Amino acid sequence: MAEGALVGILVGSESDRERIQPAVDELAGRGIGCELEVRSAHRTPDAVAEYGRTARERGLRVLIAGAGLAAALPGVLAAHTDLPVIGVPLRSSLSVLDGLDALLSIVQMPPGVPVACVGVDNARNAAVLAARILAA
Amino acid sequence: MAEGALVGILVGSESDRERIQPAVDELAGRGIGCELEVRSAHRTPDAVAEYGRTARERGLRVLIAGAGLAAALPGVLAAHTDLPVIGVPLRSSLSVLDGLDALLSIVQMPPGVPVACVGVDNARNAAVLAARILAA
Amino acid sequence: MAEGALVGILVGSESDRERIQPAVDELAGRGIGCELEVRSAHRTPDAVAEYGRTARERGLRVLIAGAGLAAALPGVLAAHTDLPVIGVPLRSSLSVLDGLDALLSIVQMPPGVPVACVGVDNARNAAVLAARILAA
Amino acid sequence: MAEGALVGILVGSESDRERIQPAVDELAGRGIGCELEVRSAHRTPDAVAEYGRTARERGLRVLIAGAGLAAALPGVLAAHTDLPVIGVPLRSSLSVLDGLDALLSIVQMPPGVPVACVGVDNARNAAVLAARILAA
Amino acid sequence: MAEGALVGILVGSESDRERIQPAVDELAGRGIGCELEVRSAHRTPDAVAEYGRTARERGLRVLIAGAGLAAALPGVLAAHTDLPVIGVPLRSSLSVLDGLDALLSIVQMPPGVPVACVGVDNARNAAVLAARILAA
Amino acid sequence: MAEGALVGILVGSESDRERIQPAVDELAGRGIGCELEVRSAHRTPDAVAEYGRTARERGLRVLIAGAGLAAALPGVLAAHTDLPVIGVPLRSSLSVLDGLDALLSIVQMPPGVPVACVGVDNARNAAVLAARILAA
Amino acid sequence: MAEGALVGILVGSESDRERIQPAVDELAGRGIGCELEVRSAHRTPDAVAEYGRTARERGLRVLIAGAGLAAALPGVLAAHTDLPVIGVPLRSSLSVLDGLDALLSIVQMPPGVPVACVGVDNARNAAVLAARILAA
Amino acid sequence: MAEGALVGILVGSESDRERIQPAVDELAGRGIGCELEVRSAHRTPDAVAEYGRTARERGLRVLIAGAGLAAALPGVLAAHTDLPVIGVPLRSSLSVLDGLDALLSIVQMPPGVPVACVGVDNARNAAVLAARILAA
Repeated sequence: MAEGALVGILVGSESDRERIQPAVDELAGRGIGCELEVRSAHRTPDAVAEYGRTARERGLRVLIAGAGLAAALPGVLAAHTDLPVIGVPLRSSLSVLDGLDALLSIVQMPPGVPVACVGVDNARNAAVLAARILAA
Repeated sequence: MAEGALVGILVGSESDRERIQPAVDELAGRGIGCELEVRSAHRTPDAVAEYGRTARERGLRVLIAGAGLAAALPGVLAAHTDLPVIGVPLRSSLSVLDGLDALLSIVQMPPGVPVACVGVDNARNAAVLAARILAA
Repeated sequence: MAEGALVGILVGSESDRERIQPAVDELAGRGIGCELEVRSAHRTPDAVAEYGRTARERGLRVLIAGAGLAAALPGVLAAHTDLPVIGVPLRSSLSVLDGLDALLSIVQMPPGVPVACVGVDNARNAAVLAARILAA
Repeated sequence: MAEGALVGILVGSESDRERIQPAVDELAGRGIGCELEVRSAHRTPDAVAEYGRTARERGLRVLIAGAGLAAALPGVLAAHTDLPVIGVPLRSSLSVLDGLDALLSIVQMPPGVPVACVGVDNARNAAVLAARILAA
Repeated sequence: MAEGALVGILVGSESDRERIQPAVDELAGRGIGCELEVRSAHRTPDAVAEYGRTARERGLRVLIAGAGLAAALPGVLAAHTDLPVIGVPLRSSLSVLDGLDALLSIVQMPPGVPVACVGVDNARNAAVLAARILAA
Repeated sequence: MAEGALVGILVGSESDRERIQPAVDELAGRGIGCELEVRSAHRTPDAVAEYGRTARERGLRVLIAGAGLAAALPGVLAAHTDLPVIGVPLRSSLSVLDGLDALLSIVQMPPGVPVACVGVDNARNAAVLAARILAA
Repeated sequence: MAEGALVGILVGSESDRERIQPAVDELAGRGIGCELEVRSAHRTPDAVAEYGRTARERGLRVLIAGAGLAAALPGVLAAHTDLPVIGVPLRSSLSVLDGLDALLSIVQMPPGVPVACVGVDNARNAAVLAARILAA
Repeated sequence: MAEGALVGILVGSESDRERIQPAVDELAGRGIGCELEVRSAHRTPDAVAEYGRTARERGLRVLIAGAGLAAALPGVLAAHTDLPVIGVPLRSSLSVLDGLDALLSIVQMPPGVPVACVGVDNARNAAVLAARILAA
């Protein structure tokens, strides 16, 4: 884990790294430490659970999760932590409705377990929102 | 767990019991043993993981998961088992697009971890599909 | 303004009060002070701007804005403050696509000015998210 | 401000200039004076408010506002003036549903504050509509 | 035709009268004369054409057309006049997507022949827009 | 008019010629005479009306109309003739939802004035359908 | 089979009879003989195939097929006959998007095998279209 | 037929071969025998029926059907066999909503005749699901 990181960023696959990069850049530009890891709610669910459970004790204050398609990652992460989780719907070649599938999979959480959803492929806004939360 | 159950059915909340009941009835009418439990990918994720991990050894052969909204349950269940998982998109008062949110959250799984999706609120078809799988 | 309120809640019209009430109840149940006001981005835009500009100095730490249709309220509020703004898409009798119009109007913010969107009519989740942010 | 302009055109960002250009060309071809400025409901909301408040006294008779995503600009402009406001939904790389997000954000205004919406990326039609209004 | 009417309102069928009534009421409340007739682009197309061709000479300054489903009325009316035409998408029992079919049929006009579209079932906004146009 | 044409084909603009060409080719391949003209429900409505009114007496037996966006052409043509009218939704650069706007504008006709709609950009199927009608 | 029937109507289930009844009434009012049967592309596919294969020799000239959900009936019927087939998308309690699922399942036929689609639940228009075809 | 094939794969047209290939590859990689044929529910319906009727006796245990547009193939195949049928929605140049037309045509089956639907263009997941079923 990155020393002094306040924001933890997860994406579901290696191919999502590029799409989430604007969040990393935005946080770096604001001098906010962050870390980025690839963990999948569907392929490595235990790694996601463990990340969520230990996030607070490792000093993280806000989590960002980017995912596409049936984008379960942000919601599952939110199930394993009480930190605020920001979800970024990401497009892929298999998306329908320009990524609306991922958007709905992220934002329509059941009562009691919220995810803070930002716009499709709008990784930068996830970072700005994280900065607002840290400054609140 | 139900003695001799071949089909395990999960729903995410108590309010989903009624919507999934046609699956239970259909299986009963075919003399196929099943069990029904309430476990949520967002509220009790460890219980879902444990259910998936132990399903095969407990004698289950097919799993059915009904969920609404950001319906992560079928996919998360499929992440913890190698049994076939059938997903039933369920409507709720918070659904948009008549439950298309749940449908997309269930069917648009990433390559490698499939869910067998049936129609919205079509619990009966999940049971018929389970019966076809058992008879295959 | 409510003494000691940490969460400020705005809705665009009197008819939205009922739909946002679960947020008020959830915060009250957690012992988090909040205030609720009716200000419209389209009918009383200056009142919204003034609310956003003074929110931090009045002690607020998180803002929630519920709105329907062309739901500009959360985004306009976010334009006038640097506090985190949570948007709740609300249905009305004039909504299309079950409130997806409001959802898209809230979540698809331009880069640089984020809104943290929760599910349609899911006021309770806005409150839980606010609580997570305050505890971060 | 352009001397003798009857039509005031706003877009939310520099990148929208190209998409709105057909409106400028159409008005020029009809000999109708217009001005084009970049002001954002989310990034420079006070500039939008000021533009709306002073539009009539500066001789403008019709306003056109082009915006994408959560396209609040036309509606917010309409909140600050009683001139007719024509909204043009513009696509961007972050749009979903081919710009339907912007279309719904513009057209679904609450009762009392209308925006005259034209088709997605159809800047020319905004200009023709403005000409019809001026000739009414 | 109503003496002194400045705003002409058409709907496609008798069953649409009720849905457009808020426009009539709003105009009456502002002291703006209007007339309301039932003419259909599909059942009485010549009557629509004749209405459009003679509208200006009869003293009308703005036209409002409400229609549902494949809502051709506003666009066809705009084809027969150079007055500004405001379109109101109306729901009916046969609508899909909550009236989005009518909305798209009205707003997506080809370049050169615009319709000023307001929100679904939002007849009142058509009247307020007409008043803004008349006051421009 | 083409000597001996049984099928009359209209498109709304020159740019639609290419998209409707497969219908012409299919009819030619079947030895069925057809004619193709450009007439617009919005730009040359009287020419459309005249075409519909005289179609039967000129020997035409089936009409095909291709149009995009707010695709009023097939419906308006059907209003001026009692011949069967086949509508082909055509995509353009301004379409939303991959041409679903045109599809809904064509298929959702009011009771009493039907259009026989085929798939988006599926001009060939319009010709095959015309051939089936002629052979009925 | 009804003596002298020119129009054959199929629906996929008993529960669809009521929704297709306006087609029967419209044809009766025009003095056009028709027959109505229940045959399902999914439950009794051979009966559908046999109906299509024998339709022409039994004197039928136009076929109407009403179906909901994954509405395969019109297309499968068209696969077994060269008579024109009119498809009516029907809503049911399991429909999504107000029956748009059925509409797309009917209208989006592959090149070579067309179905003439009318509006959702618009059985009357299927009959009027059939009458137009018979009179062509 | 392929000797020892357990999985039978159908696609509706030659152009779909490429899109379904990942299923063939996945099964081959797992050492599961399969066969791939082109049969269309709309162009060669009897061949589809015959394939379904004889599938079990020929040793097949799971069927996969890929189809686009009004994707009737999986459902019609399921009507002719009691083996489990997996449906893969495939995009084509005529698709709308990124292949959502095919997805809805496959998944929204009537009660009693299920299809196991996977994500759009996600042929690989169909194969993984087939493997899970065979291992159940």
